[in-house]
Amino acid sequence: MSFDYDLIIIGAGVGGHGAALHAVECGLKTAIIESAELGGTCINRGCIPSKALLAVAGRLRELQHSAELGIQVGSIQFDRGAIAAHAARVVEKIRSDMTRSLEKLGVTILRGQGKLLSGQTVEVQGASGSQTYTAQNVIIATGSQPFIPPGIQTDGKTVFTSDEAVRLEWIPAKLAIIGSGYIGQEFADVYTALGSEVILIEALDTLMPAFDPDIARLAQRVLIKPRPIQTRVGVLAKQVIPGKPVTLHLSTGETLAVDGCLVAAGRIPVARELGLAELGIDIGKRGFIPVDSRMATDLPHLWAIGDVTGKMMLAHTAAAQGIVAVENICGRTTYMDYLSIPAAVFTHPEMGFVGLTEPQAKEEGYSVGTVRTYFGGNSKAIASGETDGMVKLVFDKATGQLLGSHIFGAHAADLIHEAAQAIARRASVQELATLVHVHPTLAETLDEAYKRAAHSLVNSSVES
Amino acid sequence: MSFDYDLIIIGAGVGGHGAALHAVECGLKTAIIESAELGGTCINRGCIPSKALLAVAGRLRELQHSAELGIQVGSIQFDRGAIAAHAARVVEKIRSDMTRSLEKLGVTILRGQGKLLSGQTVEVQGASGSQTYTAQNVIIATGSQPFIPPGIQTDGKTVFTSDEAVRLEWIPAKLAIIGSGYIGQEFADVYTALGSEVILIEALDTLMPAFDPDIARLAQRVLIKPRPIQTRVGVLAKQVIPGKPVTLHLSTGETLAVDGCLVAAGRIPVARELGLAELGIDIGKRGFIPVDSRMATDLPHLWAIGDVTGKMMLAHTAAAQGIVAVENICGRTTYMDYLSIPAAVFTHPEMGFVGLTEPQAKEEGYSVGTVRTYFGGNSKAIASGETDGMVKLVFDKATGQLLGSHIFGAHAADLIHEAAQAIARRASVQELATLVHVHPTLAETLDEAYKRAAHSLVNSSVES
Repeated sequence: MSFDYDLIIIGAGVGGHGAALHAVECGLKTAIIESAELGGTCINRGCIPSKALLAVAGRLRELQHSAELGIQVGSIQFDRGAIAAHAARVVEKIRSDMTRSLEKLGVTILRGQGKLLSGQTVEVQGASGSQTYTAQNVIIATGSQPFIPPGIQTDGKTVFTSDEAVRLEWIPAKLAIIGSGYIGQEFADVYTALGSEVILIEALDTLMPAFDPDIARLAQRVLIKPRPIQTRVGVLAKQVIPGKPVTLHLSTGETLAVDGCLVAAGRIPVARELGLAELGIDIGKRGFIPVDSRMATDLPHLWAIGDVTGKMMLAHTAAAQGIVAVENICGRTTYMDYLSIPAAVFTHPEMGFVGLTEPQAKEEGYSVGTVRTYFGGNSKAIASGETDGMVKLVFDKATGQLLGSHIFGAHAADLIHEAAQAIARRASVQELATLVHVHPTLAETLDEAYKRAAHSLVNSSVES
Repeated sequence: MSFDYDLIIIGAGVGGHGAALHAVECGLKTAIIESAELGGTCINRGCIPSKALLAVAGRLRELQHSAELGIQVGSIQFDRGAIAAHAARVVEKIRSDMTRSLEKLGVTILRGQGKLLSGQTVEVQGASGSQTYTAQNVIIATGSQPFIPPGIQTDGKTVFTSDEAVRLEWIPAKLAIIGSGYIGQEFADVYTALGSEVILIEALDTLMPAFDPDIARLAQRVLIKPRPIQTRVGVLAKQVIPGKPVTLHLSTGETLAVDGCLVAAGRIPVARELGLAELGIDIGKRGFIPVDSRMATDLPHLWAIGDVTGKMMLAHTAAAQGIVAVENICGRTTYMDYLSIPAAVFTHPEMGFVGLTEPQAKEEGYSVGTVRTYFGGNSKAIASGETDGMVKLVFDKATGQLLGSHIFGAHAADLIHEAAQAIARRASVQELATLVHVHPTLAETLDEAYKRAAHSLVNSSVES
């Protein structure tokens, strides 16, 4: 039986792109289907434009702390339009780099909406009608979109999601943010740097509920308390009505009037239009496509990766899943290792994580040891005036295995990678304690943490 | 036989401090001898104050590039005295932290000049006379001092070394720097940021001779060409006479008149006054103390660590050697692994290195593969406007083993640590290619490099 392609990928976000790159490297004839702009959420409406805005926010915050270094800065002004243009330029550059890379590799780009007719047949509904293609294997990489909780009306202007927030079309004087996860935190950082007052509304009982509690506490002390941010915890925004002002009716009975409202209450998969039910795949109420750790669906030759699978909804997870799917397609059995996938929040300072939080490690039944080291005791942080920060390691006291690393502080998004490598190979803190780190660097916070963790194990075994 | 101490360490720099910390952890009764201020070169006259100055230089450079991000900054002024005070404060803080840490651990601090009477006996010549102490083991950690080539007169004011340059007592309008190694590069970065014109004089035939050639080339394009820096390569400063102006007679016959001259022509060990000759230890012409890779000297119970041994003269190498010496003292045979010790230069952007350069790897007989990835193609670098940079990997084509990693670019001093860990465990690029990196981060330059290196091996084995 002959197919049009060895592989068709539905969705050209970071996940689909990663899968396509690897498929071509493995010699597969590959097509990728995209109904909107190439690049998906991350490049067009997510990680990339938000990082451009965060770069500006970071610079503005630094400027305000130049006097400590002996630098006097006159007036500091910013131009909203120029900042938005910077973000748009960055998006355009990265999207066109990605498009060129696909074209250069000989990946066929099919424009239109993809729908599965079978596990090996895809219909593409484009501007000029529909066409059907076959492939030996199909990867679904259709991603996710912002979740709008019931009762919230969005108009994309006064009540909006990250899709619009990254465009920075205006700066609300008073901005409500619904959700205190990483998207909420990043936009609170951006908008307060640009002069907004923020009200952060979290439905759960603690702010930043998914973070390690020590990190969440320190982050609140640094990122929230000293900034013009009010918080409402354990509070639901039951009704949000766009307008001037925006009106929020909270579960407490309180009514808020604000200039803008950003809804950052999570993301939901984009899988309803794929025709999966007809193929016997049940995506349930939440809409995520069930996959095993090879990224296989229940249907032979059909794979799914990225946000649509609901496993750590991060661009680099999607790309890693894409590589794993392609490896399995090529007959090399490979599994995802989610434990060693790092994540970062690009606030100022940043946060970086990998592995288990302390509560997760306890829940999994480990005999949990923890150590904390502080940027305030780190020479490089002191020299550059970046002393707000902490490294927390979570390890197994029985074996010394590093289970999790949680960093809040300058360059945390870079620093987390050495811990991710350690977790990928299930390294022990005893072995990590022998690694040499450059003096003076921020990475020495990890050095000190490994050594203290290893030392705690020596002491406890001597005592016992 | 009973001793006053289990361990005496001569010299309380970063190396001696690291050894003392580990000795106490291992239960050794420890004393440390210091004739000057605690902290040695690194804390008082080296890494620490220079990083404080470099933090200011970095901030000034960033300020000049704020318009790209949509930020308008009025006047930018700096106050030399305030910058010098910042550096002095940082030194004072870190020195007192270190002193407190030694005291808290119960390490006896002996003030005075240490001299060996035997491998287990040390005389301390202090302000109030001399006293003799015995110890089961002695570690020499006396460090190094700047090398002043013949023909150069220093007055500490107009012709000076890094010892004085870090104090920033004045800013020469025209500054000659003798030596283009890491010290010369860092001070060229600082002084040009503060308005000096620099003339960089290198005796060898290329600038930055110890660096991987691709890194050195890119560094010159970014750190030298666009800045007010002239270079003289293959040129010796045969005579330097302090004064106003300072006069330099070069080997080319050229005479230069400058306002100041920084001598950064390397460092020499401090070992002549230790009484080693009397104990039968020959330190030769260059003065380095011979040690094996356990840090043992030829004399039983006598060990040496740090710059005085001449092995990678870096503070963190000294500290790592101190730990290895103590481990061996405690009967756990341990060896130094210099290949995996990273190094960094804190210019803007930074440089980070670990392992072999391409020429070194070729010289050692490897079948050398290399890949280069660029910050200009990295999403995070594009978003934050930090696109000058490169990662170069050097690997063994026969096995895929990573032999060296060389990074020029933003946060290189942080990023290098994941490569250092990889080299410590002799990892292959094939395995490193499976690690997941956060998107979008600068660490993805390494991700891309690992993947390209691994892919090059697949292709070459397919071809062969």
